[in-house]
Amino acid sequence: MKHVEFELNKEFRDRFQQALDARDSEFIRSTLEEVNPADITALLYEFNGEESKYVLDILPIEVRSKIINDLDSDTRKNFLTNYSAAEITEVVNQLDSDDAADILNELPIKTSEEIIAGLDPDLKSQVIDLLRYDENVAGGLMAKELIKARADWNVVQCVEEIRKQAENVSKFYTVYVVDDADRLLGKVSLQKLILTDPRTTVKEILDDDVVSVETYLEDREVAEIMSKYDLESVPVVNVHGQLVGRITIDDVVDVITEQAEEDRQLMSGITEDVEEDDSVWRNTRARLPWLLIGILGGLISARFMGFFEREIAQITAIAFFVPLIQATGGNVGIQTSSLVVQSLVNPGFVDEGLWKRLLKVFSVALLNGFFLGLIVFGVNWLVFGNNPLNLVVSLALFFVVVFASFIGTITPIVLNRFGFNPALASGPFITTTNDLLGLGVYFLTIHLLL
Amino acid sequence: MKHVEFELNKEFRDRFQQALDARDSEFIRSTLEEVNPADITALLYEFNGEESKYVLDILPIEVRSKIINDLDSDTRKNFLTNYSAAEITEVVNQLDSDDAADILNELPIKTSEEIIAGLDPDLKSQVIDLLRYDENVAGGLMAKELIKARADWNVVQCVEEIRKQAENVSKFYTVYVVDDADRLLGKVSLQKLILTDPRTTVKEILDDDVVSVETYLEDREVAEIMSKYDLESVPVVNVHGQLVGRITIDDVVDVITEQAEEDRQLMSGITEDVEEDDSVWRNTRARLPWLLIGILGGLISARFMGFFEREIAQITAIAFFVPLIQATGGNVGIQTSSLVVQSLVNPGFVDEGLWKRLLKVFSVALLNGFFLGLIVFGVNWLVFGNNPLNLVVSLALFFVVVFASFIGTITPIVLNRFGFNPALASGPFITTTNDLLGLGVYFLTIHLLL
Repeated sequence: MKHVEFELNKEFRDRFQQALDARDSEFIRSTLEEVNPADITALLYEFNGEESKYVLDILPIEVRSKIINDLDSDTRKNFLTNYSAAEITEVVNQLDSDDAADILNELPIKTSEEIIAGLDPDLKSQVIDLLRYDENVAGGLMAKELIKARADWNVVQCVEEIRKQAENVSKFYTVYVVDDADRLLGKVSLQKLILTDPRTTVKEILDDDVVSVETYLEDREVAEIMSKYDLESVPVVNVHGQLVGRITIDDVVDVITEQAEEDRQLMSGITEDVEEDDSVWRNTRARLPWLLIGILGGLISARFMGFFEREIAQITAIAFFVPLIQATGGNVGIQTSSLVVQSLVNPGFVDEGLWKRLLKVFSVALLNGFFLGLIVFGVNWLVFGNNPLNLVVSLALFFVVVFASFIGTITPIVLNRFGFNPALASGPFITTTNDLLGLGVYFLTIHLLL
Repeated sequence: MKHVEFELNKEFRDRFQQALDARDSEFIRSTLEEVNPADITALLYEFNGEESKYVLDILPIEVRSKIINDLDSDTRKNFLTNYSAAEITEVVNQLDSDDAADILNELPIKTSEEIIAGLDPDLKSQVIDLLRYDENVAGGLMAKELIKARADWNVVQCVEEIRKQAENVSKFYTVYVVDDADRLLGKVSLQKLILTDPRTTVKEILDDDVVSVETYLEDREVAEIMSKYDLESVPVVNVHGQLVGRITIDDVVDVITEQAEEDRQLMSGITEDVEEDDSVWRNTRARLPWLLIGILGGLISARFMGFFEREIAQITAIAFFVPLIQATGGNVGIQTSSLVVQSLVNPGFVDEGLWKRLLKVFSVALLNGFFLGLIVFGVNWLVFGNNPLNLVVSLALFFVVVFASFIGTITPIVLNRFGFNPALASGPFITTTNDLLGLGVYFLTIHLLL
């Protein structure tokens, strides 16, 4: 067995860079000959676009296509600007229909039309079919390549057909069985085909309990179904129940990863799908909306504190504890909403119901509020001595913890019910709300007790 | 084809609950007979532990085992307290070795010993072997069930062996080829076995470019390798290169999901792996540490503002803008660090290097700071008229945006370099730091300009 983990040590990189600078194609070719394309991709992340293209042009077209296909969408979009339409056509011709459609979707419409015109006839019709679907539905995830069989065939005929079709299908573990109108009847695993007597008909070994998805199903739902039923691939049918493609688990892993990334962005107050290496202007624009909401909250806070100008002028220390109150409200709100979001995604075996859930949140808040209030009271007592403000601050802190927990629980539940992504609730939204709430509670306590 | 999507409408749930209350086992059995176990699992989330056990006891043991295996770890742990060791043994005997080991790991040591003693001999020795491994390494993820073949066999012998071994292996797509010391030589896909002449030897169709992982490799790394090389299963070898198990993609999907959850918890300031339905005390404890750090930050803020008591007493409005400054610093810090964390996970094709990255962050910060400062200046000018404090607030805001961006960039990079999870930097850590930083910048500006 060959050693497959490819070491990207500094020495090697330097040597490789030298060869690149010298345009030593012989060295590059022989070095990379035995290397897994996925490792070459990692290596290319070290070089600039022009150098990477030079390396790829040396490699065989299958390897080159695999590497270009492996790049993430944004990187590839930039990188392919170095390529002519004819060069891209050559690459796309090597790919499965779903990967080909993904790349074509990223290119300017003019370039992609030019490339489609140059594709092999089979791939061309498959790709044209796939481009009709939105990227975020099953139709946009699926590949057209699959192995179809008829129920009245026997195993020998089935294997014959696999031999014919397998040329175009790189990896498969299942044969789908359709009727003469192409409607999905069931599936037969390769495992079963191998172990069955060759004269058996497909009908006899057919598994008709097959989970399929319709073309318009959202990618998130496809991911949920595949992980719920532990499927490594799922057939896609159109509204007439006809088999039109299949989705494999590796595409769904990408969906899951992107989804987690999207949630993280929502939690961090970034509005568009932006990456650090996007342009300065795009980065700025993606951040401004939530920052403005934060600013608005800050200005309302300022106006609100203005109402208590007299109190603050008399006892300046009142102002000192505003950061403490607000920071705690924000932290509690984010913690709570984050746990609620998590339990909305994975409901427990015994769903507790809203009231029981609120009761529990309330208990946790009482405990946390009590501890924090006590600690702050103790510290303030040591610093300021016996001052009536100590009690006010600690009491206000206690109430802020309780209210912030409540808002942190309610917000994601409400967002979820109205069809928004509840992760939105764990971001600047909850922080801004709780900043204002905390300020209100604090000054109300001051008003009542001081 | 049977309709597989099982509708959980209210009417059905009510009818089912009635049958449950009446302990109408005949209705339950006949209703669930044709239903996919994964759908029954979803249904059970509606009922309490005792009712769920009643339903499961009616179902055939294979279905019951599949459902119990599908439950998430915490739910299962609670649920299995309703079961005797003998009942659990019956369930575990139906499972693959990796799933069996997972369940045994969750049980009290006394119960699990009792169960192991009652397992079928083959499963027993496999499970005992698996229990040696930590849950978070390849050895803890792998299953022992796999199909092994020898290189000098021909395809017919290979299929014969598959027939023998397949009894214990539920799903497989690959046959692993080993030498007489059980060392991994390569693999043959079922696809290839089907399409090859039966007299061919395994050696001739063997793919020796096989990616394997060692037992001690961390689960995160296994997930990375499988998604990098697009593998649906990966063989696991021990330090001697001997084949000891295989990991399938569905287990890795779970690892990816858990990892995203862990990152989210870190970002929300929750220290332990806690779920909403854990006990009140555990929930409280998981939140306290970060809340205390926030409180500490708040107390330091209070102390710091104390130094400016005279200024605040003179111009109370100084205090009004503290929330604005701090909220913006916090939001900018989280946005920046979140993007940096993202790009640490998925590096771009051309890694920009620290200085170029900082330069860009700096440009975005300048732009955002400029816009926000201008807006706040405008609003304040409308509200307070021409006041020197307006300029101070806007200037301080500008600098806070710039500094917070800097800290948001540096913190995750430093954490990452020292081997911590950089997602830690997007949580209360950065908020607390930036609250203090913001306050410092604000009062320094006041000190210099007012």
